[in-house]
Amino acid sequence: MAEQIRIAIAGHGNLGRGVEAAVAKNPDMRLVGIYSRRPPEQIKPRDAGTPVYEMATLREHTDAIDVLILCGGSKEDLPQQGPEFAALFNTVDSFDTHARIPEYFETVDAPARANKRTALISAGWDPGMFSINRVLGEALLPDGATYTFWGDGLSQGHSDAVRRVEGVAAAVQYTRPIKEAVDRVRSGAMPTLTTRERHSRECFVVLQEGADAETVRDAIVTMPHYFDEYDTTIKFISAEELARDHHAMVHGGFVIRSGNTTPENAQVIEYALKLGSNPEFTASVLVAYARAVQRLNNMGRYGAVTVFDVAPGLLSPRTPAELRAELL
Amino acid sequence: MAEQIRIAIAGHGNLGRGVEAAVAKNPDMRLVGIYSRRPPEQIKPRDAGTPVYEMATLREHTDAIDVLILCGGSKEDLPQQGPEFAALFNTVDSFDTHARIPEYFETVDAPARANKRTALISAGWDPGMFSINRVLGEALLPDGATYTFWGDGLSQGHSDAVRRVEGVAAAVQYTRPIKEAVDRVRSGAMPTLTTRERHSRECFVVLQEGADAETVRDAIVTMPHYFDEYDTTIKFISAEELARDHHAMVHGGFVIRSGNTTPENAQVIEYALKLGSNPEFTASVLVAYARAVQRLNNMGRYGAVTVFDVAPGLLSPRTPAELRAELL
Repeated sequence: MAEQIRIAIAGHGNLGRGVEAAVAKNPDMRLVGIYSRRPPEQIKPRDAGTPVYEMATLREHTDAIDVLILCGGSKEDLPQQGPEFAALFNTVDSFDTHARIPEYFETVDAPARANKRTALISAGWDPGMFSINRVLGEALLPDGATYTFWGDGLSQGHSDAVRRVEGVAAAVQYTRPIKEAVDRVRSGAMPTLTTRERHSRECFVVLQEGADAETVRDAIVTMPHYFDEYDTTIKFISAEELARDHHAMVHGGFVIRSGNTTPENAQVIEYALKLGSNPEFTASVLVAYARAVQRLNNMGRYGAVTVFDVAPGLLSPRTPAELRAELL
Repeated sequence: MAEQIRIAIAGHGNLGRGVEAAVAKNPDMRLVGIYSRRPPEQIKPRDAGTPVYEMATLREHTDAIDVLILCGGSKEDLPQQGPEFAALFNTVDSFDTHARIPEYFETVDAPARANKRTALISAGWDPGMFSINRVLGEALLPDGATYTFWGDGLSQGHSDAVRRVEGVAAAVQYTRPIKEAVDRVRSGAMPTLTTRERHSRECFVVLQEGADAETVRDAIVTMPHYFDEYDTTIKFISAEELARDHHAMVHGGFVIRSGNTTPENAQVIEYALKLGSNPEFTASVLVAYARAVQRLNNMGRYGAVTVFDVAPGLLSPRTPAELRAELL
C-alpha cells in the first residue's frame, strides 16, 4: 500500500469526533493528532493512542500533517482559522454560512495560493453534496426548477435561537419538509412554493421554573426570520424527556431537479439523505475530501477550492482504472 | 456572451434527436451539423435550419466543430467510431457495454492523446450519473453497501431479445424494481438480495399469426441470462395496443448507498431518476459533458476521460464565482 495520508483535526466538538470515526474507516489514512484550545488532558480521543495537542503548537507540526481538517464553527472559529491555517497546511472545512462563502473563499484563497497549499472550503452535505446536486441538476436539465428540502432533522441554529428565548431552560428544534410539497415536486409539477408551504418547524422546550408557557410560545413563533414565516408547533416537555428522546442528531433532506427535455417529456432527478448522525456524516464528507485535497495539492492545484472543483474519482481510494472497471 | 460551443451529432437515432433538443436548451452552444450514414435527404432535423451531412464528410469539417457527440450504438458503431473520431475531434459518447469499458477506454485514449483531443466516454445515466453516485457513496460511507435498481423502465436490450424469439411479431420489455427490496435497502438494513429479489420483468408481446402462445412464453421466461434468473410476466396484446400504450421510452432507477459511520449511526444516500424519456435524458447528459470536454481540452487535459474525471462545476455554464455565490 502507498503511504498513508496523515490527517489532523483542529477542534474537538461533535464534528471533530465524527472525523476521528471517519478516518478509522479509511485504511489509506491515519489520524496523527487532535488539536484543541482546551487543555489536552480534557480531550478524550476515540482511540486512546491518538496524540492530543494544544492548538498553539500546530505551526510547529507543518511537516507532520498532510491535511488538516478544521472542525470549528462558521461563526467564530473558521473566519479566523481558515485563512491562518491555509497558509500552513492543506485544509478542509465545513464553512456553512452560505451568504458569506464568496468572501470567505477570498480570504482563504490568497494565503493558500501564496504558500502552495490547497484549501477546500464549505464541504459537508449542505453546503456540499446538496450543492453538487444543485449544479448537476441545473446543468443536466437547464429548462427546469430546483428544490431543496431539509429534514426531518434537528437544526442547531434554530435550537440555539429557541434556547436564547427568555424562560427557556433547554430546547431542540426539528425542521420537517411538508409531505404534500415534496410529493408535488417529485411528480414533476414544478410548483411555486412559499416558505410556509415547504417546511414546518417543531420545538421541544423545557421551561425555566416559573416561566409562562404562553409568553414563551409567543416569543418563539413570532421570532423574525427563524420562525415567523413557518407553521411552528411548540411542545413543552420535562428535562428528562428532552434528554431521553431528543439526543440523536438526525437530519437529512432532498435536492430535487425537475425539468422538461421536450414539451412532451418531463424528467425528475432526486438526491436524498437520511442521516442517523448529522455531524458524523458531515465528518465523513470532510474526510473523503481530505483525500482529494491531498491529490489536488500533488497535482499543483493551489489556493481555495470547493466541491465544484473536485472530480468524483479524486474522492475514492481506488485508482482511475479500478473505478472504470468496477463502478462505471 | 462568449463564443458559442459548436456541437455536431454523429448518428441520428433517438439519442441524436435527443441531443438536438438538448443543445437547443443551452444558449452557450449551437448545433452546427448532423452527420449520418443515411442520405442527408432522409434526415429530418428538429430545426429545419440545421445542416445535414454524410458521415464521410466529417473529416473535412474538423475546424468547424468544437465537440462531436457520438450517438451510435455500443455494439456496432462506437467500437469503430470512438477511436476514429477521437483522433479528429473532441468527443462525447455513451458507450454502455459495462464489461468492455476498460478496453474501449484504451482504444480511444491513444488516438485522442496523440492528436491533443479530449474524448469523454460512457456518459449518460448508467454508465454516467449512477456511476458517479456509486463512487461518491462508497467514498463517503466506506463501511456500507451499494445497491443499483433500474426501472420502472423500458429496456431496449431485453425488448430486442424478446423480438428475436420465434413467433414474436413485436414486443417491449419493462424492468421493475421490487418494492419490498427497495424499501429494505432504504431502511438501511443492507440486505443480501438475489437477482430475482431485486427486479422483475414484464413483457408485452404481439404474436405472429399462428404462433403458439405457450411456446413463445416458455422460450422467453427460460432465456438464459436475460430472463431465467427473474420472475417474468408475459402479456399478449394486439399490435394496436402495443402502438397505443407502449411507445413512451420511460426509464429510471435508484442508486442507494447505506452504511454506518459508527456502530450506532446508520446513514442512507439515495440518487433517483424518474425519466419521461430515456434517450432525451441521456442526450441531456451528453450535452452537459460536451461543455466540460471543451473546457478540459482548453485546459490541456488530452486523451480519454470518464465522468469520474470531471469536476461538477465544469458541467455548468456559470462561472466558478457565480456557482459559489448562488448554488454552494
